[in-house]
Amino acid sequence: MKVSIVGITGYVGAELARLLGRRPDVELLEVVGRSAAGQPLSKVFPNLGPLNLTVSGELQRQNEADFIFLALPHHASAETAAAILEQSPSTKVIDMSADFRLRDRATYEKWYGAHPAAYLLPEAVYGLPEIYRDKINPQTRLIANPGCYPTCSTLALAPALSSRLGQPIIEPDVIINALSGTSGAGRGLKQNLHYPEMTSSTTAYGLEGHRHLPEIEQTLQDIYGSPVSVSFTPHLVPLSRGMLATCYARLSDSFLSAHTDQAEASRAIREYYREFYANDPFVQVVDESPYTKQVAGSNYCFIYPTVNLAGRRLISVAVVDNLTKGAAGEGIQNMNLLAGLPETTGLDMLGLYP
Amino acid sequence: MKVSIVGITGYVGAELARLLGRRPDVELLEVVGRSAAGQPLSKVFPNLGPLNLTVSGELQRQNEADFIFLALPHHASAETAAAILEQSPSTKVIDMSADFRLRDRATYEKWYGAHPAAYLLPEAVYGLPEIYRDKINPQTRLIANPGCYPTCSTLALAPALSSRLGQPIIEPDVIINALSGTSGAGRGLKQNLHYPEMTSSTTAYGLEGHRHLPEIEQTLQDIYGSPVSVSFTPHLVPLSRGMLATCYARLSDSFLSAHTDQAEASRAIREYYREFYANDPFVQVVDESPYTKQVAGSNYCFIYPTVNLAGRRLISVAVVDNLTKGAAGEGIQNMNLLAGLPETTGLDMLGLYP
Amino acid sequence: MKVSIVGITGYVGAELARLLGRRPDVELLEVVGRSAAGQPLSKVFPNLGPLNLTVSGELQRQNEADFIFLALPHHASAETAAAILEQSPSTKVIDMSADFRLRDRATYEKWYGAHPAAYLLPEAVYGLPEIYRDKINPQTRLIANPGCYPTCSTLALAPALSSRLGQPIIEPDVIINALSGTSGAGRGLKQNLHYPEMTSSTTAYGLEGHRHLPEIEQTLQDIYGSPVSVSFTPHLVPLSRGMLATCYARLSDSFLSAHTDQAEASRAIREYYREFYANDPFVQVVDESPYTKQVAGSNYCFIYPTVNLAGRRLISVAVVDNLTKGAAGEGIQNMNLLAGLPETTGLDMLGLYP
Amino acid sequence: MKVSIVGITGYVGAELARLLGRRPDVELLEVVGRSAAGQPLSKVFPNLGPLNLTVSGELQRQNEADFIFLALPHHASAETAAAILEQSPSTKVIDMSADFRLRDRATYEKWYGAHPAAYLLPEAVYGLPEIYRDKINPQTRLIANPGCYPTCSTLALAPALSSRLGQPIIEPDVIINALSGTSGAGRGLKQNLHYPEMTSSTTAYGLEGHRHLPEIEQTLQDIYGSPVSVSFTPHLVPLSRGMLATCYARLSDSFLSAHTDQAEASRAIREYYREFYANDPFVQVVDESPYTKQVAGSNYCFIYPTVNLAGRRLISVAVVDNLTKGAAGEGIQNMNLLAGLPETTGLDMLGLYP
Repeated sequence: MKVSIVGITGYVGAELARLLGRRPDVELLEVVGRSAAGQPLSKVFPNLGPLNLTVSGELQRQNEADFIFLALPHHASAETAAAILEQSPSTKVIDMSADFRLRDRATYEKWYGAHPAAYLLPEAVYGLPEIYRDKINPQTRLIANPGCYPTCSTLALAPALSSRLGQPIIEPDVIINALSGTSGAGRGLKQNLHYPEMTSSTTAYGLEGHRHLPEIEQTLQDIYGSPVSVSFTPHLVPLSRGMLATCYARLSDSFLSAHTDQAEASRAIREYYREFYANDPFVQVVDESPYTKQVAGSNYCFIYPTVNLAGRRLISVAVVDNLTKGAAGEGIQNMNLLAGLPETTGLDMLGLYP
Repeated sequence: MKVSIVGITGYVGAELARLLGRRPDVELLEVVGRSAAGQPLSKVFPNLGPLNLTVSGELQRQNEADFIFLALPHHASAETAAAILEQSPSTKVIDMSADFRLRDRATYEKWYGAHPAAYLLPEAVYGLPEIYRDKINPQTRLIANPGCYPTCSTLALAPALSSRLGQPIIEPDVIINALSGTSGAGRGLKQNLHYPEMTSSTTAYGLEGHRHLPEIEQTLQDIYGSPVSVSFTPHLVPLSRGMLATCYARLSDSFLSAHTDQAEASRAIREYYREFYANDPFVQVVDESPYTKQVAGSNYCFIYPTVNLAGRRLISVAVVDNLTKGAAGEGIQNMNLLAGLPETTGLDMLGLYP
Repeated sequence: MKVSIVGITGYVGAELARLLGRRPDVELLEVVGRSAAGQPLSKVFPNLGPLNLTVSGELQRQNEADFIFLALPHHASAETAAAILEQSPSTKVIDMSADFRLRDRATYEKWYGAHPAAYLLPEAVYGLPEIYRDKINPQTRLIANPGCYPTCSTLALAPALSSRLGQPIIEPDVIINALSGTSGAGRGLKQNLHYPEMTSSTTAYGLEGHRHLPEIEQTLQDIYGSPVSVSFTPHLVPLSRGMLATCYARLSDSFLSAHTDQAEASRAIREYYREFYANDPFVQVVDESPYTKQVAGSNYCFIYPTVNLAGRRLISVAVVDNLTKGAAGEGIQNMNLLAGLPETTGLDMLGLYP
Repeated sequence: MKVSIVGITGYVGAELARLLGRRPDVELLEVVGRSAAGQPLSKVFPNLGPLNLTVSGELQRQNEADFIFLALPHHASAETAAAILEQSPSTKVIDMSADFRLRDRATYEKWYGAHPAAYLLPEAVYGLPEIYRDKINPQTRLIANPGCYPTCSTLALAPALSSRLGQPIIEPDVIINALSGTSGAGRGLKQNLHYPEMTSSTTAYGLEGHRHLPEIEQTLQDIYGSPVSVSFTPHLVPLSRGMLATCYARLSDSFLSAHTDQAEASRAIREYYREFYANDPFVQVVDESPYTKQVAGSNYCFIYPTVNLAGRRLISVAVVDNLTKGAAGEGIQNMNLLAGLPETTGLDMLGLYP
């Protein structure tokens, strides 16, 4: 397959190159980054030096590409996607930005401003394979790759809200307290991410609203069948890669009447989650509260759901690497599905621990 | 004043020595640590080397001490406290352990086992000055110094639950999602705190219950006037010092009917908190979400309360240094009050930033 | 190929499993770790959970193994190697310990005590492929895998001491100032590696002598042709993976008379190093001073040699991941060579950045 | 005393405020920072919020100041110093920049360009109290506060090069391998100091020359009596505060002939250093290799000198906090001397550990 990456100078672009650059079935056709046009890729990301690639200033061979990943800011991404889809009929686009994630145009425009290519919204498929796998197939041309917080939080909550295996286990009112490594904030320089200030420090942010909220609401509503109330508070923690979502919700009355022993109820929840994710190779329901480093550099999501019967609450903790399962890895998982390949092709590396 | 520290080989003991060791009005009479008896203190904690102290194996001059800090494991602490209070009538004890924090013996024994000196429970005063200052005075002989999580969480929620300035702002059902630096787990070696494993990693723990929960419940009930339901989930984050509590609760109907503008409501909450803490020198209500490093090594608690009107929730974020305001600093704040000194004596150092 | 790992509960064992566990041409026959016998590997290293392996208490199928990696403490390693080589004629051993690294028994015994299987010393091949590749071939049965410091330091200095491309560039008296991530100290708990103490801290250690010194001396002597004086000072830096060696030596008179322009001389050195390593896929001579993170989780060694003409010194900086190129990756590189495979098989992953 | 700080928006300015802001004998008259003029200081540095100061855009009350600290970029510093010294006869200036550190104008101009006020060079006193204390007294009007690397390195080497207590112990040719926390690089944003890139990483820099080299050479020459050859290689390590210099030099023949036992020689060196620094309250010669965190936030320099008789080398390791003893703390130490106060006034806080 021939694959191009637009936006190679950002962390998501670089992570795509890291993961794709060594696949024998993939040729990296073009790696595009306007700010580094003409430079060896090793100049921008020395870790990628062994690939011996040169950065292009713009796409020049888009017709040859089977897949083009767009790791661009929103708006720029939609514009580029529209151009590719129009000009290159056999090319598929996997958009890593937020531009096609929200099906409702008005919601998009509330958070991101006027949409540059809203006519593509109906065609785009939200690329969270564990939830929407049936729509991610060789007929799909445009994937909206999920945000990192939505991937992590949604996977932590989906089994409890779904009716697939029985009644929902929780009430449709959730609190998501999420911790993110700093690479999720991108490569652009900011005072609060200056090393001396961020090291040995942690904070909550987005307390008055974060763009990933409507995306989470959209997917949880799809799963639950009607709207779910979501409180979402992101935090920055002092690490580069890693995301942890601690999700809280009231247990349903039916769950509470069926389970009266704390330990039994916790085991039952884990088994229920395991059954729900039985066919999802990257989701692992684990028996002890996970650490983010266990999945660093991998495409795995480790989930530990448990209950507090006294407090009548479900607490579900999920961890991912925000750049891998939370971004580039998930994008490649989508590419594999679009290409009709096994979902795990080139993606089954294990977490880099310790 | 003559002050002794028992348990000098732990982090709380060392922090007490750091803070007391340079006070012109304090003589460090004895620093006691069985495991390092006879060694220079610099051997255990080289940062304290300039104090030129030697570790004692046991208390030998307890009658001379005006104050003795006990930084011992629970049970050992209660036993030592009982002995001192009996034998040395003019000595006051500030106990850093959990032994005297819970007024209800049964609750204590559920979490910690049989109490070695339950007869002292009625005499002990819970040393959270911002809430119980009137009980912390020269007549007090035994202080139960609060845990780090309770200090941080309680300060974040107290104004919203209290009726002192008006009706409570929230309903009595709170979620506390707390992040702690690893020094809070103590100096004892553990696999999950081995540097290669903890660095660049984060996790939730205590999901099935944590000993600080009943302590939080006790104080919130005192403030609110009747029981408050508390869900409390601690997390480990990769830093040494620092604690951040993100607290969630439903806003009361009266608050919601009085405030319809998000920005106005957030400002109103901050002003309300400021008024509540107007006489508390170590609590600062801040206008932007705080970072733990802003209070590193200091005795300050920075609080940022805000509301999410759409989600009908209060979100209150507080940060402290878990070893200072969360332990040793608060202990010295208590000592100052017991001694009739200004509360800030020797404690007004600023956060070590960056 | 069938491969077993003895010592799976340590970091080197786990890193071997991480790298070998996903190779289609490798079957992990047995993973042995006495302290975790019978446990699922996920219990010890959750990141390896997706491999679904169970830890064995001892080797039971050693005759079936093509390769056995020994990631054991010294002495235990030599004893196990001796047993395997005697009992299983078609099995090859790659020993990750120090037991067979020093050809001179007396030197070994000075640093490590009595050798349990000194008769094997003549057979063992020191597995630094960039220097000894011709001896690492399908006839070899016992590989002594180099230490992390020796790998990193030796690669930084070899071209300058060698006569392969011309006269040595430096005098045979070198200072090696090396920084190591903490995973190099192993998984055993130590006070100085307790997270709160090691984070945000750094130190020099081994100032009165370190076991890797004679190993470095042995290889540098092999390269130079006669003894080289070595001063070696290791340091601990607050990261898990990563090693950086900064090496200093006097430039030879012939080099100094041939080069009088600082910039030209630096370029010349880099070209010289590139020529020296032209056939070494894992050594990259780079144009800017490298960061350890550029090679995290990879098998690459990035080297930046430069000169200070005014000070008449060569300064050569090399970085590796101490667990990969500094241990497990190099072991697998050796296995590939012993198996007659391309050296890079299963080892060409790129550094996990950022 | 009335004290002003110019350059409050940088890390050195903030550290000065942290250390001076709580002194009962100091009034912070003005804190000046053009980029934050009119803002509360808490907006720039929330840790300093309890001081309740407002940032001025420029000096307005310089005549009232007893001391003005200049924490400005070079050139700007010299210009401001010249103006103050001319206009305000009773005001003393402590310049934290490099502008007055090098007595030789030509050397300065080689590294920094044309000097804006070279006529002041003869008047300026290099403020390293341990070496030049006799020149730092109430008659001095202009202090050139040393750089962090020069402070740390010089203190590590001074006793060995000096003839004060006997013959120099080493030859006048030293290698200084120094590790610095990132706060030393300042508050300005840089890609390599972006948190995700710098965390868990380390590098060497300045390999072709660093501005602190001539400063080190100047002081070592003063101590030794004739020029000392210096190789100096700085490194960045992933922490905010902290500096460690590992210094290497050949032991003199006289030392080698007087000492033949390794352990005895190491002890002798430490005693020699202790005698040298007997009257220096901030220098502690320690018996074990120090960690940078032992002096975090303090004004101490811990030094561990040792010898390697086999390698005929002295190895001396020193640690400081680069912002305290390496900058602001040393500046205040100088201020105390200029004011005729005990050198330790307001500066004897202990390292923030762990």
